[in-house]
Amino acid sequence: MDRKLKQLQTMLAEVSDLYAAAALLGWDQQTYMPTGGAEGRGNQLGTVETLAHLKFTAPEVGKILEDLQPYADQLDPDSNEARLIKVTRRHYDKQTKVPSELIAEMARVTAVAHQVWAEARAENNFAKFQPHLEKVVELRRRYAELFAPYDHIYDPLLDDYEPGLKTAEVKTIFEKLRPQQVALVKAIAAKPQVEANFLYQTFDEQKQWDFGVQVISSFGFDWKHGRQDRSAHPFTQSIGMQDVRITTRSNPNFLNTGLFGTMHEAGHALYELGIDPLLARSPLGSGASLAVHESQSRMWENLVGRSLPFWEHFYPHLQRVFPSQLGNISLERFYKGINRVQPSLIRVEADEATYNLHIMLRLEIEIALIENTLPVKDLPEAWNTRMKEYLGVVPENDSQGVLQDVHWSGGMIGYFSTYALGNLVSAQIWEQINQDVPDLPDQIRRGEFSPLLGWLREKIHRHGAKFEPQELIQRVIGSKIDPAAYVRYLGTKYSEIYKL
Amino acid sequence: MDRKLKQLQTMLAEVSDLYAAAALLGWDQQTYMPTGGAEGRGNQLGTVETLAHLKFTAPEVGKILEDLQPYADQLDPDSNEARLIKVTRRHYDKQTKVPSELIAEMARVTAVAHQVWAEARAENNFAKFQPHLEKVVELRRRYAELFAPYDHIYDPLLDDYEPGLKTAEVKTIFEKLRPQQVALVKAIAAKPQVEANFLYQTFDEQKQWDFGVQVISSFGFDWKHGRQDRSAHPFTQSIGMQDVRITTRSNPNFLNTGLFGTMHEAGHALYELGIDPLLARSPLGSGASLAVHESQSRMWENLVGRSLPFWEHFYPHLQRVFPSQLGNISLERFYKGINRVQPSLIRVEADEATYNLHIMLRLEIEIALIENTLPVKDLPEAWNTRMKEYLGVVPENDSQGVLQDVHWSGGMIGYFSTYALGNLVSAQIWEQINQDVPDLPDQIRRGEFSPLLGWLREKIHRHGAKFEPQELIQRVIGSKIDPAAYVRYLGTKYSEIYKL
Repeated sequence: MDRKLKQLQTMLAEVSDLYAAAALLGWDQQTYMPTGGAEGRGNQLGTVETLAHLKFTAPEVGKILEDLQPYADQLDPDSNEARLIKVTRRHYDKQTKVPSELIAEMARVTAVAHQVWAEARAENNFAKFQPHLEKVVELRRRYAELFAPYDHIYDPLLDDYEPGLKTAEVKTIFEKLRPQQVALVKAIAAKPQVEANFLYQTFDEQKQWDFGVQVISSFGFDWKHGRQDRSAHPFTQSIGMQDVRITTRSNPNFLNTGLFGTMHEAGHALYELGIDPLLARSPLGSGASLAVHESQSRMWENLVGRSLPFWEHFYPHLQRVFPSQLGNISLERFYKGINRVQPSLIRVEADEATYNLHIMLRLEIEIALIENTLPVKDLPEAWNTRMKEYLGVVPENDSQGVLQDVHWSGGMIGYFSTYALGNLVSAQIWEQINQDVPDLPDQIRRGEFSPLLGWLREKIHRHGAKFEPQELIQRVIGSKIDPAAYVRYLGTKYSEIYKL
Repeated sequence: MDRKLKQLQTMLAEVSDLYAAAALLGWDQQTYMPTGGAEGRGNQLGTVETLAHLKFTAPEVGKILEDLQPYADQLDPDSNEARLIKVTRRHYDKQTKVPSELIAEMARVTAVAHQVWAEARAENNFAKFQPHLEKVVELRRRYAELFAPYDHIYDPLLDDYEPGLKTAEVKTIFEKLRPQQVALVKAIAAKPQVEANFLYQTFDEQKQWDFGVQVISSFGFDWKHGRQDRSAHPFTQSIGMQDVRITTRSNPNFLNTGLFGTMHEAGHALYELGIDPLLARSPLGSGASLAVHESQSRMWENLVGRSLPFWEHFYPHLQRVFPSQLGNISLERFYKGINRVQPSLIRVEADEATYNLHIMLRLEIEIALIENTLPVKDLPEAWNTRMKEYLGVVPENDSQGVLQDVHWSGGMIGYFSTYALGNLVSAQIWEQINQDVPDLPDQIRRGEFSPLLGWLREKIHRHGAKFEPQELIQRVIGSKIDPAAYVRYLGTKYSEIYKL
């Protein structure tokens, strides 16, 4: 059995190496690749990813997994070996259900859909995108149907990004959350607005970059195993667990973009960098799910990076970097400014109080699309109605509305809710950490982050993808995903800032 | 047959994509990879290259090649299709002769040998490297023996880098060249030395970089399909034919390193970028051989970049960039300085008159090693004796002598002579171009390089690896590799500079 296990590990290591090569091809595509390399890069990515998929779904992998099952049943169920077999089995069963024709068709359809989406957004022309989105929805529905029976047809899509989570669970969570978050936004809107003009001045981009480096270095970002580059759309990419890269962008006329984006991506990277090296080159060597990942990025960005203790430490530094812009702005004004709540049209620019509402409307629309109860052509109306209801604002055009996000054009239906779930989880974990590390605010006030990082590594990071997200969260905080902690967090924070 | 050919092309395209992925992994390793990523990168490269090799040497490739042979025999022998089948057959036959155990053993031995070589060089301790080099030589000998019968046991090694060329041919060429080149160096040594101190001043590295960019842009380097980065050891890497990258380094206290290194690498890149796009994703989509490649890099670096017409155009620019360093140095003094001949110990720093002598002694030593007529332990003595004889200088220690180059530690025995052959070919081609484009010096004097690049593309670049190097050279200039043109070139140039 040891020999069989070794054989499985070798196969998985090779698959993992291929995905790491694909990861580098993708990272390079968005950072340094000359534009003329695009066509070749598409071929290279296609070949490498197809090979990885073929290797992973080969019948011999299934055979070894079957042979290993009796052995796995005798192992400590929490051991790396038992979990490796379990998680691999899960991926194998899911991936082998999908005919390669469907994968190829999805690749073809989304390649075009992505291109058309970009044009449609630029031209503010939803009708142009509509037939392509219809195809994408149809293909995602056919994909979901492969996994029947299910409680809900949206389940298999959600499961792609959040293993084990059910549509009904997310709905329950969001239905509990929505009225409270809508009420909070309304309460804030009734109060005088805080000022934030000082964030919209000219900030030298190199100085922004250097300040960001200082901050994430203090978080514990390890430059021996990571790097930071610029890209149009910020992202974090692990290229094997020993090489985790973040990309960021900054805005010379608005401080928040680079500042909080850098902390956000560093949060993702710290997670990947904290995984137990024993899990390298295997399906366990990555984060547990997108929601758990987002809980880490949002924690460093918001729970840490938008907190008063954090700025008690860092604000004097920032003032020294930008004396003419911030020298006369008090810590309190600055803190309120970076936390200003303002219902707006664009998800990626939303504040903490409104962000989840952007997600909820997307989830409702996605479910209706996949259920076939909302025709694609009615999407703009459904979008705008909900924007009005949840946020009180309505986009003037579809570019600022239903066309704003890239996800659907790439086939990523099932993804959005993980953003909001990550917010909820971040607050749940935060309450637990504050119980376990009672002087955490004082540590942050002193710029000390290693106890926090140590806690996260011990409880979450090191486990990689050994546990399904709900199981992991249960182990860490003793309960499942629940919005109460996040509602408490927002309530406390904004009551103080807006004197609710 | 069309279907079979298509099948072959698809297979070769996938292999080519895998090698492109490996190329990016390698490029990144030497430019941006954080140091902690080294172990993972080794695994990734091993997996991707092994897969590419396995895919290429699969029995079904051999079967298709056999099936296609009758079809190939009816094609125009110069057609892309006929050449594709021929070249693929050649690679296939060679690669399938090598047992995978030998490949794996070479990988293991050289991984250690490379590490030990770096230490031995740092510690000036040849004895430490000796047993590892003995293993490398033994493995290369075993590799060569796989291809028996041969005229000479060194032939298969040379053939790895210079397809079709025989040891006897190189020996003949070098025996004709050596006495003439030794005599030239002696004649120069008898004359007063030209001054070059002004090249050893402080030159801002960003300004050096910008000037280099200006120069290679004027050569026709296409930034839409290429880029330039810094690395410790300059190299050019094609990542698929539409994305060709150069890396360079500069020295803040010596102008030549960055200046000529940039032109050299751009010469390699222009070759790759000029290959017919129809040859992409196939074994024909690269340069014909290392010697032909080197003929291109050395042509742009030396025949163009160290010529008087070139500097008649660019020297005023350079003086404006470095007014305090070069403002008082006349064009004539500058031209002589960059062409100063000075026998020295280190190959990569050698001038045009002495460079080939460094190569010849390496070839003689390599042949003797593989023939087993020179024991590895006697290598330092053999090295120093020849240095004295050919160049009149003797290294004080082995770090500056036999340990200076990385090649042997990586198993690259058979490689060196291509550097010298490239020099010879560059001069042969140059004579031909000057016949075909009679006002070439005037064009260069005006900073016009597109007729030169156009000629190279038409005659050489576009063909990729369709023709073996000797055949290609024969087609271009009507004769094989011969040292006469290079000797004429050096004679004319240095007679003028040193008034011989």
